[in-house]
Amino acid sequence: MISHIIRRVAIVGGTHGNELTGVYLVKKFQQFPDLLKRSTFETVALLANPKAVEMNRRYVDRDLNRCFCRADLANPDLTGYEDTRAKEICAQLSPKYHHGADFIIDLHSTTSNMGLTILPSSKHPFNLQLLAYLSDINPSVRAFFREEDGEDAPMLRSLSAFGCTIEVGPIAQGVVNAHQLQQTEMLIHGILNYVDATNRDNPLAIPSHLTVYQAICSVDYPRNSVGEIQATIHPQVQFKDYEPLHPGEPMFLNFTGESIAYQGESTVFPVFINEAAYYEKHIAMVLTKKQQLQLETV
Amino acid sequence: MISHIIRRVAIVGGTHGNELTGVYLVKKFQQFPDLLKRSTFETVALLANPKAVEMNRRYVDRDLNRCFCRADLANPDLTGYEDTRAKEICAQLSPKYHHGADFIIDLHSTTSNMGLTILPSSKHPFNLQLLAYLSDINPSVRAFFREEDGEDAPMLRSLSAFGCTIEVGPIAQGVVNAHQLQQTEMLIHGILNYVDATNRDNPLAIPSHLTVYQAICSVDYPRNSVGEIQATIHPQVQFKDYEPLHPGEPMFLNFTGESIAYQGESTVFPVFINEAAYYEKHIAMVLTKKQQLQLETV
Repeated sequence: MISHIIRRVAIVGGTHGNELTGVYLVKKFQQFPDLLKRSTFETVALLANPKAVEMNRRYVDRDLNRCFCRADLANPDLTGYEDTRAKEICAQLSPKYHHGADFIIDLHSTTSNMGLTILPSSKHPFNLQLLAYLSDINPSVRAFFREEDGEDAPMLRSLSAFGCTIEVGPIAQGVVNAHQLQQTEMLIHGILNYVDATNRDNPLAIPSHLTVYQAICSVDYPRNSVGEIQATIHPQVQFKDYEPLHPGEPMFLNFTGESIAYQGESTVFPVFINEAAYYEKHIAMVLTKKQQLQLETV
Repeated sequence: MISHIIRRVAIVGGTHGNELTGVYLVKKFQQFPDLLKRSTFETVALLANPKAVEMNRRYVDRDLNRCFCRADLANPDLTGYEDTRAKEICAQLSPKYHHGADFIIDLHSTTSNMGLTILPSSKHPFNLQLLAYLSDINPSVRAFFREEDGEDAPMLRSLSAFGCTIEVGPIAQGVVNAHQLQQTEMLIHGILNYVDATNRDNPLAIPSHLTVYQAICSVDYPRNSVGEIQATIHPQVQFKDYEPLHPGEPMFLNFTGESIAYQGESTVFPVFINEAAYYEKHIAMVLTKKQQLQLETV
């Protein structure tokens, strides 16, 4: 149980301007605000990076979803477009402020086969219970914890301890897919219903366990001395997010046709395999371990 | 039969900087030029838009693959990055010049489910026979004729009457997929082998018929008065490139959940369904008619 009632939920889209699922849902919610109405809280729908949306790019100067750590928000020398937007969004959404949001849902999409992935804003029991509820109503929902998650993470979702990022894929950048739009919208309604029931002190039933994928580390593509990529994701691994990768199994395929094996000592579950936006971040995939969490049931 | 021997083949990638299949294949061929060696002609591999490749964008100022009509190539007032690159590429590849290319293969990819699509540079019997050969060795190859094809088309491939564009999909922009890379490379080898055999006056056997998809018109997304898209591709049509769409069947799904039907009078075969780069060109899909061509057999 959370100790206070959630008064204001923010649904954020277009944090990355070319991830159109969130952009289109926010525009839809702005056009039909009644869809978001619940009696115990209000909901705002916000386009985080309108200039990047207009340009159909991930960002203008810098990845907005890496601009929210405290030091950067407090740094007056950071004056790029995304630096400025981060400060504005912080002022608008931070629970410290009068009209802040108690709960933030940040909508993303990925070229990886991540299905419906939820990354909680913190490991607060309320978020974990919500994840268990969502996994229960839709077994294709998966819970993923990033390494850097914590209260000073650079992601937009870190503005509130309550909430999550939704990652939907596979979908190309700059594209809308009706089915994924519907699935994401259903997930949002599931979240709003859960928050509403909790606010009424009438929490919804959840399972006692939650399966989570905890990030261990990321793996870069093999590169040559000038940084050029020398191998692709191996066809056996492409689109196999959340499936086990055992020691010695192929991971990459180089341009002369040779496989490069996974050299780790334990079985891992790769995610964000071949995400377009991560080439520049030197991430070919993120390795996770699969865990079962016992939950405090309500 | 063609009346002259092909002396020089150009393989072009990165005409669109974020279509990485062609970019990676050109880099591979530049690193391993022996892969392209055939005794009757030489082959060059060329990166068309290196600045866009570096920026991982389709283009810098303007779509390079719309810069090759004669009037633009001759216009000294067009001085943008792609305008200038088009003139340089024309000088380098035009068969009019000493070191020109007789045959151009331009490598593209698409977020649409186009499989292995070949767009010939002209309807010259040699190109059609080549298409029939490629469809014969790989039945998943499809032949697509655009409306604007002709000797003054604005595409790079129009620099030579002989050759084609290869469109491979579905694949997200900014992503390499090992399987599609292999399929495209096999297609290139098929083309080089066919040209080589023809040069030797020992043409390869081809079927007597070729199935082609001839573009009729393009269809835009439904938009509101300020140009914002108001519907997605209908889930029944998404990824259904080359499949029949009958009059009255759903085409789009609007944001209030209503289907918008195809209003035409005859069955069509949509292609380029939900191509990311075509949102800005106001193309949701291109409608084609399916035809059987009788070929002059060799």
